Amino acid sequence: MQRQAAALLLLLLTAKTAAAWDMSMTSLADKLGDAIEVKGIQQGSIQSKLPLVLNVWPFVNATMAGWAALNNASSSAPWLDAVERVGNHCEDFPAECGWSVGRGSNADESGDVTLDAMIMRGDSMDAGAVAYLKDVRNAISAARLVMEHTQHTILAGAAATRFAQQMGLPLQTLNTERSTHAWQQRVAANCTPNWRVDVEPADSCGPYTPLPPSSNATDEAPAGGIGGRRLLAASTKSHHGFMGSHDTVSMAAIGADGKMAAGSTTNGWFFKVPGRTGDSSVPGAAAYVDGEVGACGCTGQGDINLRFLMCYQAVEFMRQQMDPKLAAEAALRRVVRRYSGAGATFGLFAVNATGYHGGAAFGWERDNMTRWMAGNPQAPEQLRQAAFPWAYAYQDASTGGKVVWVEVEDLSRIPEPQQPRRR
Amino acid sequence: MQRQAAALLLLLLTAKTAAAWDMSMTSLADKLGDAIEVKGIQQGSIQSKLPLVLNVWPFVNATMAGWAALNNASSSAPWLDAVERVGNHCEDFPAECGWSVGRGSNADESGDVTLDAMIMRGDSMDAGAVAYLKDVRNAISAARLVMEHTQHTILAGAAATRFAQQMGLPLQTLNTERSTHAWQQRVAANCTPNWRVDVEPADSCGPYTPLPPSSNATDEAPAGGIGGRRLLAASTKSHHGFMGSHDTVSMAAIGADGKMAAGSTTNGWFFKVPGRTGDSSVPGAAAYVDGEVGACGCTGQGDINLRFLMCYQAVEFMRQQMDPKLAAEAALRRVVRRYSGAGATFGLFAVNATGYHGGAAFGWERDNMTRWMAGNPQAPEQLRQAAFPWAYAYQDASTGGKVVWVEVEDLSRIPEPQQPRRR
Repeated sequence: MQRQAAALLLLLLTAKTAAAWDMSMTSLADKLGDAIEVKGIQQGSIQSKLPLVLNVWPFVNATMAGWAALNNASSSAPWLDAVERVGNHCEDFPAECGWSVGRGSNADESGDVTLDAMIMRGDSMDAGAVAYLKDVRNAISAARLVMEHTQHTILAGAAATRFAQQMGLPLQTLNTERSTHAWQQRVAANCTPNWRVDVEPADSCGPYTPLPPSSNATDEAPAGGIGGRRLLAASTKSHHGFMGSHDTVSMAAIGADGKMAAGSTTNGWFFKVPGRTGDSSVPGAAAYVDGEVGACGCTGQGDINLRFLMCYQAVEFMRQQMDPKLAAEAALRRVVRRYSGAGATFGLFAVNATGYHGGAAFGWERDNMTRWMAGNPQAPEQLRQAAFPWAYAYQDASTGGKVVWVEVEDLSRIPEPQQPRRR
Repeated sequence: MQRQAAALLLLLLTAKTAAAWDMSMTSLADKLGDAIEVKGIQQGSIQSKLPLVLNVWPFVNATMAGWAALNNASSSAPWLDAVERVGNHCEDFPAECGWSVGRGSNADESGDVTLDAMIMRGDSMDAGAVAYLKDVRNAISAARLVMEHTQHTILAGAAATRFAQQMGLPLQTLNTERSTHAWQQRVAANCTPNWRVDVEPADSCGPYTPLPPSSNATDEAPAGGIGGRRLLAASTKSHHGFMGSHDTVSMAAIGADGKMAAGSTTNGWFFKVPGRTGDSSVPGAAAYVDGEVGACGCTGQGDINLRFLMCYQAVEFMRQQMDPKLAAEAALRRVVRRYSGAGATFGLFAVNATGYHGGAAFGWERDNMTRWMAGNPQAPEQLRQAAFPWAYAYQDASTGGKVVWVEVEDLSRIPEPQQPRRR
């Protein structure tokens, strides 16, 4: 069935030319719904030589650390090591990775920094993850230990910490003066904004009790929103803890032999409800890989992505022979069609087994997303300039919030925004 | 793109007749690989009147509890209540649900019973889940509170318990004499079998340390297996804690207005590594619903399902206009092609928005899977006889472990097994 469908889709999507993409994408937009308009020249993916490391954010040193691991001939799975090392670098040097990973930022309501991470290998479809992990600095290494030393996929909470310690990882608090200071400021601001919904008190620090259900509070999905639940304004992220506009780090690596891994690591949202587990712990959400197809890494509003599984879907589109960049964009359009309100920021890359790759993003600052690395690792300047071909989308206030997609070949060709972004 | 593909698939899959299904299924088997053979008459889904409750296991009273909620005219979301009530009934009366849900069974290595649960609504795509939850009897109600009173999707660990208590759920230990006795027996058996891999000691109760990686321990995926990791023999499940061969309870409900919800609740595997979170906590894994498409519920080897997301894929196939039964079967075939070794048991149902439904199963006893409920709730005998049309598969020892699929219209027409099943 899949391959029948794939063959048919291939007939539709023969294209590597801009004209052909333009046709298929316009047609796609026509089909996908009301709030979508396609502008600019459609571009497909570009191909890199293998091996290859992809990182959803332009964190050069972290990506270089992955590259170094990928070129370690003594490892039996350098592509797996590479994914772990990108994560480790961000966990070890969180300031280099926008404070969106590792210790020292984004404490939860109770003041604790907790981590989510996942790693997956494409040959065996093995995966390991940790959720709501305290006191372990290298969360993605803990995830790899879950993958390699249990038959399970996800371990959560205090038991995940004990497991990581049993398997040899050192313990250390993830809270720092920096994270505690930001947390104290939020508490001093009456714990608002926070991530709770329909509780009282709404404007002070609990104890929270649920408001009784109202007839329309949960039963109508407002346009542009999910389930009647407010989402934190994007500005929340830049106030405390979040320096800049980065988020979950997700990555993939392909060895010279075509073997692949993918993974993700994050400290989640600032002032999250304790115990909150995001998409970084779930295969198919923040990252996915299928050795027969390709890999994907995602970032952004993980609570929403957990309900749509963008990386699984991007790989699924590639299974149907869709071009990686279009696969990323189509997976993102699925979500944006249903959720494009305040707080909606998403970005992902997709790569297939032959090194073709591309990305798509919604709601981020235009200069900040999705770089890739290939070629000479001794040329970090080259890395800095390298970027996915990607699709970029935003809500256009001048047209009543219509979602506008812009297709770009590289960052230097992104047009200037027509109006200020919402952050 | 989706709808173009859907239209094309529809041309391929026009069928509601046995002959047409036979043709398309044989072709599917041809495409999907080596280890698959199709026998018997292909049957598509059958349609039920709405409203409808589906339960992946034939737990009559639990399903009836869902039905009662579905018919409560005073609720604004009776289809959501129905899913919660099916789960609550199993959580409240675990003996009725094979001890696979709720308190009193399947303690982890440390002797604690912990729960995973998830609930999702198809109109808004809102979802809530709890993972590694202790001391809360009604895990799926805690999941609903996460959905309705946070902007998050999953809460894990001790913080999830605190959240549930804050939101009004009572606390009580989930450990009972029954679960503790079974746990003590396993400890007395040197804690074997357990779910750890490549640790020493292998045959006594820790403290465990990881074995150093060997060149082939994690880098080759053996035929029929995943990632070189052993899986517990199926016999493990029936020794302690698991009475009978049931597993995670997953369910879906559709209201008379076509609105849908899906959910899942479980106590996971006996003697799991503490913190283990299964597919029941993850939208797309043990259950999924998209109000524009349909719903799915899954049971079986959740650690594996977390890497393949069968319910997401079944709904994705239905999005492409695939018949629900075929969608369930095709999603299952994806996994079975790559994992059909010892310990592999999977089952799922799929239902679309018009009430067409069917299921597929692999490796379970043939008489035990997947009943549905529709029609007169005052006729439990009718319910007991009602069954999905489903696809049933097993490994045929007489042909060297080849996977054989049998298509059946109802349970009474399942042929007698050709050889003993492996449990």
